Amino acid sequence: MKPLSFFRLKTREEVLALYQRFSPLDAEEVALLDAAGRVVAAEIRAPEDIPPFPRASMDGYAVRAQDTFGATPGSPQYLTIIGEVAMGAVPDRQVAPGEALRLPTGAMLPPGADAVVMVEYTAEHPDLTLEVRRPVAPGENVLQPGEDVPQGEALFSAGRRLRPQDIGLLAALGIISIPVHRRPLTAVISSGDEIVPVSQTPGPAQVRDSNAYLASAWVELLGGAPFLWGIVPDDYRALKNSLAGALAEADLILISGGSSVGVRDLTMEAIQALPGAEILVHGVAIRPGKPTILAAVSGKPLLGLPGHPASAAVVMHVLGRPLLARLAGLSDYQTDRGGCVRARLSRNLAGAIGREDFVRVRLREEDGTLWADPILGSSGLLSPMVKSDGLVVIPLGVEGLSRGEEVSVQLFHC
Amino acid sequence: MKPLSFFRLKTREEVLALYQRFSPLDAEEVALLDAAGRVVAAEIRAPEDIPPFPRASMDGYAVRAQDTFGATPGSPQYLTIIGEVAMGAVPDRQVAPGEALRLPTGAMLPPGADAVVMVEYTAEHPDLTLEVRRPVAPGENVLQPGEDVPQGEALFSAGRRLRPQDIGLLAALGIISIPVHRRPLTAVISSGDEIVPVSQTPGPAQVRDSNAYLASAWVELLGGAPFLWGIVPDDYRALKNSLAGALAEADLILISGGSSVGVRDLTMEAIQALPGAEILVHGVAIRPGKPTILAAVSGKPLLGLPGHPASAAVVMHVLGRPLLARLAGLSDYQTDRGGCVRARLSRNLAGAIGREDFVRVRLREEDGTLWADPILGSSGLLSPMVKSDGLVVIPLGVEGLSRGEEVSVQLFHC
Repeated sequence: MKPLSFFRLKTREEVLALYQRFSPLDAEEVALLDAAGRVVAAEIRAPEDIPPFPRASMDGYAVRAQDTFGATPGSPQYLTIIGEVAMGAVPDRQVAPGEALRLPTGAMLPPGADAVVMVEYTAEHPDLTLEVRRPVAPGENVLQPGEDVPQGEALFSAGRRLRPQDIGLLAALGIISIPVHRRPLTAVISSGDEIVPVSQTPGPAQVRDSNAYLASAWVELLGGAPFLWGIVPDDYRALKNSLAGALAEADLILISGGSSVGVRDLTMEAIQALPGAEILVHGVAIRPGKPTILAAVSGKPLLGLPGHPASAAVVMHVLGRPLLARLAGLSDYQTDRGGCVRARLSRNLAGAIGREDFVRVRLREEDGTLWADPILGSSGLLSPMVKSDGLVVIPLGVEGLSRGEEVSVQLFHC
Repeated sequence: MKPLSFFRLKTREEVLALYQRFSPLDAEEVALLDAAGRVVAAEIRAPEDIPPFPRASMDGYAVRAQDTFGATPGSPQYLTIIGEVAMGAVPDRQVAPGEALRLPTGAMLPPGADAVVMVEYTAEHPDLTLEVRRPVAPGENVLQPGEDVPQGEALFSAGRRLRPQDIGLLAALGIISIPVHRRPLTAVISSGDEIVPVSQTPGPAQVRDSNAYLASAWVELLGGAPFLWGIVPDDYRALKNSLAGALAEADLILISGGSSVGVRDLTMEAIQALPGAEILVHGVAIRPGKPTILAAVSGKPLLGLPGHPASAAVVMHVLGRPLLARLAGLSDYQTDRGGCVRARLSRNLAGAIGREDFVRVRLREEDGTLWADPILGSSGLLSPMVKSDGLVVIPLGVEGLSRGEEVSVQLFHC
């Protein structure tokens, strides 16, 4: 066993880079209606053209463009209306020179026609003569086959998270089953002699299992599948057995442990005793969240959360989210921007030496300016996290931020 | 029936203000583990103190503060270690003057003690003498009962969307069942003679039902419960019957209709024929998305989406999201900030006269600068929405934005 002092603090970027050691989970097929928010596992190409036929993109008249050349309001061109094209119907007439067919947006362009004159630039006479007051160029107001998406085009690469408009495009192409990466099955282990289940009334000196619920809610909102693996006492053998059991079933282990030095050492020992275990990170240069552990056990990641609730929440935001994104196969898991707003800092903030500092802030709008009010308080407290809207980062090596400075607020996930 | 010309374009703000006519949905109780992302339906107060007992917030020794006064590294105070307090255990000893009890972070403070000396400022001698090198004030490194959350405090008001840390706090208090607003059950009706189900191969001139899938994916990601109500031909009676059936079951109707003028008029007529129907909006001053319809039918909202896919997607982003948030009970549905990033515009953009302009952009990082590249193309195309990352807004009354200008990009939801 390596002495614990071997480990120096890793920066956030170093931890994110280490996530490349973990492979995205294998693929499964899901129905298109269930694919929103999932991550594509294999490149998807267009099996056909969109649109599959030449289509009017405006309400108007299908014409031969050359029949409209030179038309002006003062000297219009006159065409003969020979009928109309209904939505979804195949035109039963051909447009010959001097003829026009009425048609709505989305209808199929009839053979012979090569353009659509918008209804706004025409007048219909009772004898079915069409007065055209403006010329159209060939192809104008017509969507050509494959103009939106040509057959064979690569639509989505592996690693792309599907958004509603992506689902719309796949539907238009009739792709009703999508290969996506599995959701990370995430075991949340709670450790601590003082922890009782949430549904129990704690005895004196005991507390309820709140961090496991916090971690589980994060996993849920991030598209993972969390399950509570149970509460384990501060006992080396019990902890090791629980870890081994969870590793046999889950894709990712989150250990929500105590914050005391003795308990953290015990967790480290139990992890290192697992076959194929490698401790990758023991301590991260962030505040709060320093006592974070990252390990790989036979290729599976294990993230040890700090015991303080604010630290656990920040670590889930800063390190847990990209880890879940990596397992879910997201290609840009390291740069995922999440939600943010710009606001002005309402007071000076001093940074932490040698640590990237994540300061909780509450947003407040006053006279049209959005202010970020720092919410101070020990990381052992639950309520400051609940009262705040997001985090302001004081980067490594920056002494502090000044009152009135414009900052980027990373909004908490929900 | 009011003539359609009666309706003038409404601004986005006017539409959002009209949403106040729709009441948040009624409440249901959900288990705490299922409450993340849901909106609280009734105020929740703390039934007990957090912490419920005085707790050490550091690893160290429980002492009487006055026994440490005047301690320095050169002239330490000496105390007698009489034992230790285990995590989760009730201390079995009292701390008398001159005594100290070892204890970890989170352990209960023993009677008699009023402060904790951090282990860093002490040394333990083999004869169980504790050398204290720095004084502590009464209460130092101790979390008092109720200091985090006092019993009776209002934690969450109705209208609050629960985040992971909120779930953690509720777990700590043993609140395992939460009153939340029901998810908006949303019927998505597709209308159009040319529309075939996604699983079918369209005949010539037909297209698949893609906008309904786009709308359904939006509803899903926004926490609503979507169901596809089916495809209705462009027929007044069929449309009216479908609307009436959906209104009997759903909390919200989304009609994904055609973009041709005739089809939109038909939809309006079918809506107006429903008992208790009132058209609130017929046309919104946004681009794309102008031919949007909003109606109230016996208190239930009905949103008519434009037929062009890009327009439908922008309307879901700009108007659909706050409507779902309103029904879900979110108190700040009008100001929900969503995700955004700051970027520099890579070319000049002209605005639309009398319309708020939502320009699709793709983000590109180059030499450390984030650029927003406008993706142009007719709103009848699917692919530009799929290729873009978000929207840049050119506000009403602004002529345009200049190349190089810093803009806020509203990221697409996912």
